[in-house]
Amino acid sequence: MLPYIGEFVGTALLIILGCGVVANVNLTGSGMKGAGALQICIAWGLAVMIPAFIFGEASGASFNPALTLALAVDGSFPWSQVPGYILAQLLGAFVGACIVYVLFKGHFDATEDPGTKLGVFATGPSIKNFWLNFFSEFIGTFILVFAIKGISNVSGIAMGVDKLFVFGIIVAIGMSLGGLTGYAINPARDLGPRLAHAVLPIKGKGDSNFSYGLTVPLFAPILGAICAVLLYAAIPW
Amino acid sequence: MLPYIGEFVGTALLIILGCGVVANVNLTGSGMKGAGALQICIAWGLAVMIPAFIFGEASGASFNPALTLALAVDGSFPWSQVPGYILAQLLGAFVGACIVYVLFKGHFDATEDPGTKLGVFATGPSIKNFWLNFFSEFIGTFILVFAIKGISNVSGIAMGVDKLFVFGIIVAIGMSLGGLTGYAINPARDLGPRLAHAVLPIKGKGDSNFSYGLTVPLFAPILGAICAVLLYAAIPW
Amino acid sequence: MLPYIGEFVGTALLIILGCGVVANVNLTGSGMKGAGALQICIAWGLAVMIPAFIFGEASGASFNPALTLALAVDGSFPWSQVPGYILAQLLGAFVGACIVYVLFKGHFDATEDPGTKLGVFATGPSIKNFWLNFFSEFIGTFILVFAIKGISNVSGIAMGVDKLFVFGIIVAIGMSLGGLTGYAINPARDLGPRLAHAVLPIKGKGDSNFSYGLTVPLFAPILGAICAVLLYAAIPW
Amino acid sequence: MLPYIGEFVGTALLIILGCGVVANVNLTGSGMKGAGALQICIAWGLAVMIPAFIFGEASGASFNPALTLALAVDGSFPWSQVPGYILAQLLGAFVGACIVYVLFKGHFDATEDPGTKLGVFATGPSIKNFWLNFFSEFIGTFILVFAIKGISNVSGIAMGVDKLFVFGIIVAIGMSLGGLTGYAINPARDLGPRLAHAVLPIKGKGDSNFSYGLTVPLFAPILGAICAVLLYAAIPW
Repeated sequence: MLPYIGEFVGTALLIILGCGVVANVNLTGSGMKGAGALQICIAWGLAVMIPAFIFGEASGASFNPALTLALAVDGSFPWSQVPGYILAQLLGAFVGACIVYVLFKGHFDATEDPGTKLGVFATGPSIKNFWLNFFSEFIGTFILVFAIKGISNVSGIAMGVDKLFVFGIIVAIGMSLGGLTGYAINPARDLGPRLAHAVLPIKGKGDSNFSYGLTVPLFAPILGAICAVLLYAAIPW
Repeated sequence: MLPYIGEFVGTALLIILGCGVVANVNLTGSGMKGAGALQICIAWGLAVMIPAFIFGEASGASFNPALTLALAVDGSFPWSQVPGYILAQLLGAFVGACIVYVLFKGHFDATEDPGTKLGVFATGPSIKNFWLNFFSEFIGTFILVFAIKGISNVSGIAMGVDKLFVFGIIVAIGMSLGGLTGYAINPARDLGPRLAHAVLPIKGKGDSNFSYGLTVPLFAPILGAICAVLLYAAIPW
Repeated sequence: MLPYIGEFVGTALLIILGCGVVANVNLTGSGMKGAGALQICIAWGLAVMIPAFIFGEASGASFNPALTLALAVDGSFPWSQVPGYILAQLLGAFVGACIVYVLFKGHFDATEDPGTKLGVFATGPSIKNFWLNFFSEFIGTFILVFAIKGISNVSGIAMGVDKLFVFGIIVAIGMSLGGLTGYAINPARDLGPRLAHAVLPIKGKGDSNFSYGLTVPLFAPILGAICAVLLYAAIPW
Repeated sequence: MLPYIGEFVGTALLIILGCGVVANVNLTGSGMKGAGALQICIAWGLAVMIPAFIFGEASGASFNPALTLALAVDGSFPWSQVPGYILAQLLGAFVGACIVYVLFKGHFDATEDPGTKLGVFATGPSIKNFWLNFFSEFIGTFILVFAIKGISNVSGIAMGVDKLFVFGIIVAIGMSLGGLTGYAINPARDLGPRLAHAVLPIKGKGDSNFSYGLTVPLFAPILGAICAVLLYAAIPW
């Protein structure tokens, strides 16, 4: 049971901190409104690193259906646990997003623009173009999973320092590619909060944009993650 | 005697660096005025990490009555030392705030807005709402204490790297939730400097806002910290 | 074969993340446009650190012809592998730049200024002056290589922490000297993407400025790197 | 001879990177002009950390006459080496500042304000007040030296992680107190570059402000450093 609890609580914490920083920086009335892209990128890195550290031993700290699936394809994670992991990740992301909504309830009420409200929950492209958006999420997740494979294969790394690298990878993808599609690079991170946006009674909210949400941020990360483990396996280490 | 000295000096150092950065970034005439939320978040993380490192062995480096109480509830800290620890923390926070006042005396004199002056010492909500503000401080402290429990249970972590994670946790809470209520997440951090604000002869100062200070930032962190250790204990690690 | 694959894939990854951040922060329509110099400096540090970690054991993670040559001069890298390494680095940099172009295709199309487009790929001086520009790239690469030599000679450093220092060195050179010539400090990092800029069908692109690109960012880094290993060897450690 | 070489080269490197970032961010025409206080604070931290790592074993990596003197008072550094160390530090700082001048020659020429030019080399108060300025440098150096003592006494710290803390301490002092007097916290860091400013043929330069430079940034750091080792010794560890 512990691994599923770990994925659920860990993903909820990831989303509280991750969607939290977007709310904190973008919603009207927040004391840190306007803090900018740098704060968003660093905080998302911490949002992944902190639960990864807490639940690393308990669940492997995947928090990401694309990563979970790719590790199963890779043979380093049992297929039998994949459905439970993905369910726990989606539930955790949904619950985390609901907590962010309650925390920032007053600030959601004070914010006019529906797009800003949706942006707290889910990702979207800065320039709409299906295949380029798909490629953006594909490459981002490819780098994420390739780097995670690389780090887990380094022998003798000081305990804890590996988690600092996970932080660095998330920050790097955000800083370098985040302006393209908002770097979902994780189907649960996008779909869970998007469902929360659709369900929650957010004042003056707009469309939840499932036409984008059910395509690019679901399938591109999965494909990118699988290609990463396959390329990684093809290199004659 | 050493643990109490550690909590006293450590909390004073924490407040010099922590309240210091708010003064440094917000008071009129400072060479770094306007440096923004990112600098505040990072500096608060360092403000906790540095004394945590220096006094970790001496006192356990709590610096926070909510954490001290929760660890006592948890059974990992002796109740007999709780009163002395909390007293040392409050005294340290008060003395640290007085040193910040002297350091920035010229800049306090040059600053017009009483709210900016109070903001150097104590926290406040960006949108006033008792239960939402309470929830903000509750969740922030919950995450803090849950993560600290999680890190202290990881076996084999390289010495010193655990303190880097404490830095990361403080920065994450600030970056993701700081715009709600200023993340006191520590009764001593808020009450000690608020008392200093009330007592010190600050030119043109306004009200010390004890109606907020004696409620939300005192009780929400304590409740959040206790819930965190209870949930942590309930997980079948 | 593995070392050459490592240099090729690693340099490609370095350029995707490195040239990526410049595109992400400077091109019209990016969701992170205007994030500024700090994000560029930090992301370049991560762009070097992440592949350095993945390919450190496989290839030594040079990714830089100036460093490869200097280590050969130093006697710590075999001359026989130098040509293959440099070719792999240049190819990797070229391929990485092509991927950045595809990723940001829509944003390149939306950007008017040809100088901004070239700036994604290649470096240039903020104030044109051959010898001062040469000196800037000389000193930057000197510091890079001197520090790398210094770190590799420290005994007992915790595994992985050495890569954090490499991150720190790249960030430091960028933050402190980057405004002079854009800190190429690596002939492959500049020439590979510059060739990509010349070859790719970028809408409304201008000149690729090979008169600068084939002089300062090629020869100054090589000279700086060689002087660094020579001075390092001259110190009576 | 090695320790003196280490202090000389290390301090020169510290000043190239440290005074370099101020030039890089403040001088007219720099590609990173306006990057702000955050970049300055982080880069100064790296400016200390990188040579500290390279020369830690060779010289102890003091780079600071106040620290060297305080360690001699403390009994952990031989008095006989103090004069040579301080001379090497001052020379290194002077040479480093000259290199920064040459690197940014074009940008110094393009900058109008003499105060901005002096600010690249030496520190100054944001609000002039002798005793408050003295107190600012006293407290900053006190924290620096107290924290360094604290870190060097922690047993079992992973090799290299201690240098990350030195980085954190410098950044913390800058972020939290830097707007007061520019945090010299090191007589060589201020006096060496100030002498360079006085001697170098900088176009349109103003006064080197020795009336400040020969008082506050010389004596306050020394007093603060000595008080820090004395208080540290008085704590019953």
